[in-house]
Amino acid sequence: MTKITIASYLIKQLGKLDITEIFGLPGDYNFEIVETIEKNQNVNWIGSTNELNGAYCADGYARQKGYGAIVTTFGVGELSAINAISGSYAENVPVMMIAGVPETKFIKNNTLLHHSLPNNYKAFYNCYKNVVEACAFLDFKNAKSEIDRLINTMVKTKKPVYIAIPQDVAISEIEDINNEIKHPSSDKQILNKAVDKIIEEIEKSKSPCVIADILAHRFEARKEVNDFLCKTKIPSTCFIRGIDVINTNTPNFLGCYVGSKANAKAYNLVNSSDCIICFGGVISDLNTQGFDFKFNINDIIAINADFVKIRGKKYNNILIKDVIKELINKTNYKSKENFERDFIYKELKKADDEKLNYEYLYPRLEKFLKENDTFINEVGLTSFGTMPMKLPQNIDIHNQMLWGSIGWATPCAFGCSIADRKRRTILITGDGSFQLTAQEISAMMRYKVNPVIFIINNKGYTVERLLCGDYQAKYNDIADWNYSKLPEVFAGECFSAKVKTNKELDEILEKIESFDNKKMCLTELILDPYEYPELAQIINKHKY
Amino acid sequence: MTKITIASYLIKQLGKLDITEIFGLPGDYNFEIVETIEKNQNVNWIGSTNELNGAYCADGYARQKGYGAIVTTFGVGELSAINAISGSYAENVPVMMIAGVPETKFIKNNTLLHHSLPNNYKAFYNCYKNVVEACAFLDFKNAKSEIDRLINTMVKTKKPVYIAIPQDVAISEIEDINNEIKHPSSDKQILNKAVDKIIEEIEKSKSPCVIADILAHRFEARKEVNDFLCKTKIPSTCFIRGIDVINTNTPNFLGCYVGSKANAKAYNLVNSSDCIICFGGVISDLNTQGFDFKFNINDIIAINADFVKIRGKKYNNILIKDVIKELINKTNYKSKENFERDFIYKELKKADDEKLNYEYLYPRLEKFLKENDTFINEVGLTSFGTMPMKLPQNIDIHNQMLWGSIGWATPCAFGCSIADRKRRTILITGDGSFQLTAQEISAMMRYKVNPVIFIINNKGYTVERLLCGDYQAKYNDIADWNYSKLPEVFAGECFSAKVKTNKELDEILEKIESFDNKKMCLTELILDPYEYPELAQIINKHKY
Repeated sequence: MTKITIASYLIKQLGKLDITEIFGLPGDYNFEIVETIEKNQNVNWIGSTNELNGAYCADGYARQKGYGAIVTTFGVGELSAINAISGSYAENVPVMMIAGVPETKFIKNNTLLHHSLPNNYKAFYNCYKNVVEACAFLDFKNAKSEIDRLINTMVKTKKPVYIAIPQDVAISEIEDINNEIKHPSSDKQILNKAVDKIIEEIEKSKSPCVIADILAHRFEARKEVNDFLCKTKIPSTCFIRGIDVINTNTPNFLGCYVGSKANAKAYNLVNSSDCIICFGGVISDLNTQGFDFKFNINDIIAINADFVKIRGKKYNNILIKDVIKELINKTNYKSKENFERDFIYKELKKADDEKLNYEYLYPRLEKFLKENDTFINEVGLTSFGTMPMKLPQNIDIHNQMLWGSIGWATPCAFGCSIADRKRRTILITGDGSFQLTAQEISAMMRYKVNPVIFIINNKGYTVERLLCGDYQAKYNDIADWNYSKLPEVFAGECFSAKVKTNKELDEILEKIESFDNKKMCLTELILDPYEYPELAQIINKHKY
Repeated sequence: MTKITIASYLIKQLGKLDITEIFGLPGDYNFEIVETIEKNQNVNWIGSTNELNGAYCADGYARQKGYGAIVTTFGVGELSAINAISGSYAENVPVMMIAGVPETKFIKNNTLLHHSLPNNYKAFYNCYKNVVEACAFLDFKNAKSEIDRLINTMVKTKKPVYIAIPQDVAISEIEDINNEIKHPSSDKQILNKAVDKIIEEIEKSKSPCVIADILAHRFEARKEVNDFLCKTKIPSTCFIRGIDVINTNTPNFLGCYVGSKANAKAYNLVNSSDCIICFGGVISDLNTQGFDFKFNINDIIAINADFVKIRGKKYNNILIKDVIKELINKTNYKSKENFERDFIYKELKKADDEKLNYEYLYPRLEKFLKENDTFINEVGLTSFGTMPMKLPQNIDIHNQMLWGSIGWATPCAFGCSIADRKRRTILITGDGSFQLTAQEISAMMRYKVNPVIFIINNKGYTVERLLCGDYQAKYNDIADWNYSKLPEVFAGECFSAKVKTNKELDEILEKIESFDNKKMCLTELILDPYEYPELAQIINKHKY
């Protein structure tokens, strides 16, 4: 039997999850792992500008490709990444956080090395225990079984895991067994019971409806959701986190649910229904416009990742994809409703020489989006611009409406670009958010990916202007950067532009289209500090 | 009795520690705290570009001014700051980390709000418990007593503390009692016993020596150390973390201890002494060039922050400053040694047109440094350039030789500049480190401070080239920025230059001096990727 090092085994198993790029920063406690990656021809090392950004990249990569990984050094590196990993946990994104830590003898002796805290080699592991699905601190004995456990956990839960690998453990050898990764499966009996019960509920209902949400995306059930809706014609809506689950053309789709203050059809559909079927829902504040609904969540049919809850009764060990497939197989229900979606942007007005405004910006971006795009919406107000859009087929949209960490989107876009160089990656972000992680633009140029980036320059944290006590509070102002000059500093290939009028936007978008996804583009959009997308009026404390 | 809100009480108490600037980012769970700061005329809000940078700023501010504070929002904000706070813990820098968290009712109901993890409102508090001296999660009942406890802990230990404040608790009111902060004091009896014993040890010794280190700086005993050395003439050295403790002109000072491979006089002094007196020492790897000493640490006289250990016997509750003062009062010892320091840079050679090199750079910087400067050395190789310097009087030097988090130095320099606008702040950093936190340059320009910044552009992590298995490993390369163009992006007042030869450096430094500390300066230093300060040969795995 040939031998393999623990680090090589780990990278090999991650390869089985199609992780062909790993993000991170080198450090003297992780050289063994980074060198293993460099030597492995099936995986590429992607150097990050800092660990937070690297972990956001891995998050974006995993959103796009299924799974992601980041390698950092002990203490300083892993702690810098923890916010992003915690975000992956909140948002159900399976990322493995790999920390290289000092040799076993130093751990045993509690030696005060750089990057360590006095007498506490487990301090950072203990931090991570609070924010991931599973944690392991490898030693010579447990290394292989712990790696297997963590990978199987990632696959089952689509949540991040944390692994600390001492330097000497990383290069220790085990037998090179070809170990299969465990993929979860449904309990057939329970599946039948649950599906029969759901069909019974639909058939006795007067007004069934569907809400689609993020876990249908994460657990790869988007096709099934649409097939089910096409077959049954049950009217549907989606929460904002699941905005890319239901196709625009799926019958009786009413667009995004945005509470009582907009999209009345979707609001009334859901809140007057006697049978709400929720595919992969996560009921959080921003996902429901501040819990703005009337139904009782114990009174719905919730098809979750690996269990179903029908009016409070739980059916365990059945996977969302299997449940929907079986529903499609078994149901003959066909709705007679004939809804028309009216929560949409009106026809695009002609580009004029007026100062760029939201009334023009988002409908124009809607027109710019194409099939197979990946569209990343930074935390803040950008999602309010996307909600009313009629989206092209097979678009992937990423937002962070649960974790909501400003700065996430730029590195996330880089991760998405690396995950699939063929898809066009489009990022829209605001200046306040952008400044937190701006250096990742340089990584995009270094690794020659071609995202299309829009930075709204409106001189501050606009979402917070709407939410705080004083609309013009100084603490929501930020430094005024020349964003379009960043490519000159980062010294790579990038088209950049600054847009001040609607007409300029129109022209620049046409130019960007002419590049045919072969050039990175960074466009600074000058907007008024006190304006915002009309729909964001919902959260404006000062005017609503 | 007048009333005061909890947030106001906290800010008022921090003011008693001379915290007149607080760093951070606003967020919808900390508006109450940020608005309290904005309304308070004795304290200024300093907006940070991200939370990690903000916490590094607070660290720099505290290093320079005694204490610091940062405010972040729940989850996303506090976790982004945790690496910097953990660094403050390792490095004995008292910073208060203040997190604004959701209202009590949401905590009680475990409501799934943005920035939260399912069913776990204490997750981030539980993270922080591992990396600070004390933690508090405020409620209506414990708020005042917990604030007092945390502040007293900061004062006693010079370590960071963490406080989570729910929004409704922040604005709840208490009686405005004028509460004094508890400053620790020494136990007089124990103090006498310990000092007598130390003097006895010195007098019976044939070769007493002193090592000065970082805790003598942190616990404000630098003057006392020098007074003691001037009176007794005991030969001395310092660890690199305590490089600014002993004045260059103090008799028999041999310069920095750098192990057996350089500064033989200091090495021999310490390792042949029968009575090592260590003022505020922290025995860690980088502080001692990899534990490169021969003495037994249980066989020395260790004057620690609040206890003394004399050859293993512990004397508790006596403060370093009091111990040294009492030593000065009581001792009549006078060494007859007459040492001359020879671990110094030779006379500065004439600036020539050769490519800029380390042989010229550091001796020229030595000449550039002046009395009352603050000089920040980024993690990596910069400290190796500083070790041989003869330093001017009253200089403050900050490095991070224990925590060693690359990227720390740039925001730290901003924090130092804010802490004392009269002192000149000088930063030397490397490109690899700089990229992690580069956006803090924009905060410097926004808040109109005038640091003098040197960025070594040598295209990678040079310290890691020396430490890793392959000197030319690709993973130690980084993106190649035009650092001197950054001020154009950040759009503020800043002199910037790019230096390629020794002569150019000489001219630029003269120019910078002519600005008389009235202009921010950013100088990019082009150096060879595979060169390093001569002294760094100590850690070079490939050549030594």
